[in-house]
Amino acid sequence: MRNMRYLGVADMIALIEQLGIGNVLKGMAAYIEEDFRNWPDFDKTPRVASHSDAGVIELMPTANAELYGFKYVNGHPGNFRAGLQTVTGFGVLADVATGYPMLLSEMTIATALRTAAASAMAARHLARADSKVMALIGAGAQSEFQTIAFKEIVGINRVQVYDIAPEAIAKYRRNLAGSGIEITVAGSAAEAVQGADIITTVTADKRNATILSDNMVSAGVHVNAIGGDCPGKTELQASILTRGRVFVEYPPQTRIEGEIQQMPEDFPVTELWSVITGATPGRLSAHEITIFDSVGFAIEDFSALRYLWDQVQATGHGQIIDLLTTPEDPRDLFGLLSKPEAA
Amino acid sequence: MRNMRYLGVADMIALIEQLGIGNVLKGMAAYIEEDFRNWPDFDKTPRVASHSDAGVIELMPTANAELYGFKYVNGHPGNFRAGLQTVTGFGVLADVATGYPMLLSEMTIATALRTAAASAMAARHLARADSKVMALIGAGAQSEFQTIAFKEIVGINRVQVYDIAPEAIAKYRRNLAGSGIEITVAGSAAEAVQGADIITTVTADKRNATILSDNMVSAGVHVNAIGGDCPGKTELQASILTRGRVFVEYPPQTRIEGEIQQMPEDFPVTELWSVITGATPGRLSAHEITIFDSVGFAIEDFSALRYLWDQVQATGHGQIIDLLTTPEDPRDLFGLLSKPEAA
Repeated sequence: MRNMRYLGVADMIALIEQLGIGNVLKGMAAYIEEDFRNWPDFDKTPRVASHSDAGVIELMPTANAELYGFKYVNGHPGNFRAGLQTVTGFGVLADVATGYPMLLSEMTIATALRTAAASAMAARHLARADSKVMALIGAGAQSEFQTIAFKEIVGINRVQVYDIAPEAIAKYRRNLAGSGIEITVAGSAAEAVQGADIITTVTADKRNATILSDNMVSAGVHVNAIGGDCPGKTELQASILTRGRVFVEYPPQTRIEGEIQQMPEDFPVTELWSVITGATPGRLSAHEITIFDSVGFAIEDFSALRYLWDQVQATGHGQIIDLLTTPEDPRDLFGLLSKPEAA
Repeated sequence: MRNMRYLGVADMIALIEQLGIGNVLKGMAAYIEEDFRNWPDFDKTPRVASHSDAGVIELMPTANAELYGFKYVNGHPGNFRAGLQTVTGFGVLADVATGYPMLLSEMTIATALRTAAASAMAARHLARADSKVMALIGAGAQSEFQTIAFKEIVGINRVQVYDIAPEAIAKYRRNLAGSGIEITVAGSAAEAVQGADIITTVTADKRNATILSDNMVSAGVHVNAIGGDCPGKTELQASILTRGRVFVEYPPQTRIEGEIQQMPEDFPVTELWSVITGATPGRLSAHEITIFDSVGFAIEDFSALRYLWDQVQATGHGQIIDLLTTPEDPRDLFGLLSKPEAA
């Protein structure tokens, strides 16, 4: 008999508050790094997308020899007008040996966590080791997660933030009051990047925008490009991409969804996992510009689910649910109906 | 703010017992028939399979203009030895307009129900209208569901059952005691098919077997071939398939998974949906042999989820779960953490 664990939003919040969000981000980053190190062992299926006029619903599966995971995620730009999340999601982790799902988890908060953890893990390999100042362009739903991850994992102690919406800035400052991070508000993106070691772009508009123009990127900077993550949505002026090396999660997906959708199909990229294994060098000098063109890949969700599974087992958070039948005799499924007391 | 409904095993059993299993099967058959009638409107993605030495885990998505559904299903032949189900599953129904999932349902019982409902719905179009006697070869997990569906939807009043395992027969008879169906136990498959109007094959062995040989199929019979549903698993002697017309759910899938995997790639088949719309005739005469080579298709799961969604709304069965975040301000995801009382 197997049971399945459910980690809903309330459980997720309780788990994060028990462990501390900094520890959760560090833990997820370590799991992501481990899975990137074992990248060739993964079954990397493309996302399965169902498009409509209103948006897209996607399933993102991946597996290694022991575990299978998938995430359900939608993207509906018009949801914001109805007071709904543009993106929601949930994930499932299953046992490859039996095919039984083990964990069902909310993945709206978990996706923000894993995106920030992956960004900071990549920056630890790609940004200058002495990086202390981060420019943050976009103070939306992911901004606080990115900020805490870069503080905890990279050692950033100052953020220069810019957003076109003053209320977004106000929310960002309110949420991070007392976090120990020095926050300065910039009047423009150009002002935000002054003196920054790392530039994180994480804006929400679904269009080809120039959030970051070529003249704003100085030698030695690491660009953490988060917001350009689907066809028709980019943030960087294309010429930036030719000034340094571009690091990606999974080239076939990034060429469609990432900043490099602006570039020819054979535009050279470096796979992040090969930097982590040591097969390819990361940053080559203090003057090099490095760019992480992040779109979010199924293996990062897998790592997040794997981390969460280990934490719910260790802490007892999450509830047992009866999503799976557990008949005494597997051939007697019907017997569950005629003996309701066996449920 | 949107909530999501969870229909676990206990809720599913309670729902079936309130509505009556005959009504559930008839209801699902009507929903399947409606969706088959609108077949061209569906986005028909192939299954996404992840194979291992132990088995397979699959995601089966489909969508029309209003609703999106997918099923997670595994197939692990060795699970039986560990007292686990060979096949388990769950499904999700979502709103295409917002991408928000609405229903999470167990789909082990629901799959047995939809398979039986689809079989009986097909037989109502393909079997002789005066069919009263069904041969049932295989008394495993699906046998009782098939039996009740054929009683309720086709008008079968007598079943001649055969299984190699006496305990399976005993379980089948026990579960259907008092169901109003006359059950006779045959000593062989050949004896079971004597005088039958419909032959249902639903055996579990994962191999190319000859459960039904050519000489056992008389003129005018409808064959409901359920068990041959994955590569390397067939039940019918190939020559049977050339003696009548073969009806299938979705040819690209059935040619890989169904009985017709034994036949050349251009073996002629008729799509069941075209019979339901009236574009193609069903049974042509009282002497014709008709064969439903069923493998189970994503649209049938979609129909089942759609039916269940309507029933949980009407009855109140199922629980509200917090799989999705509902922040007051969608841009303030982080605010859920710092204000846990808002959860």
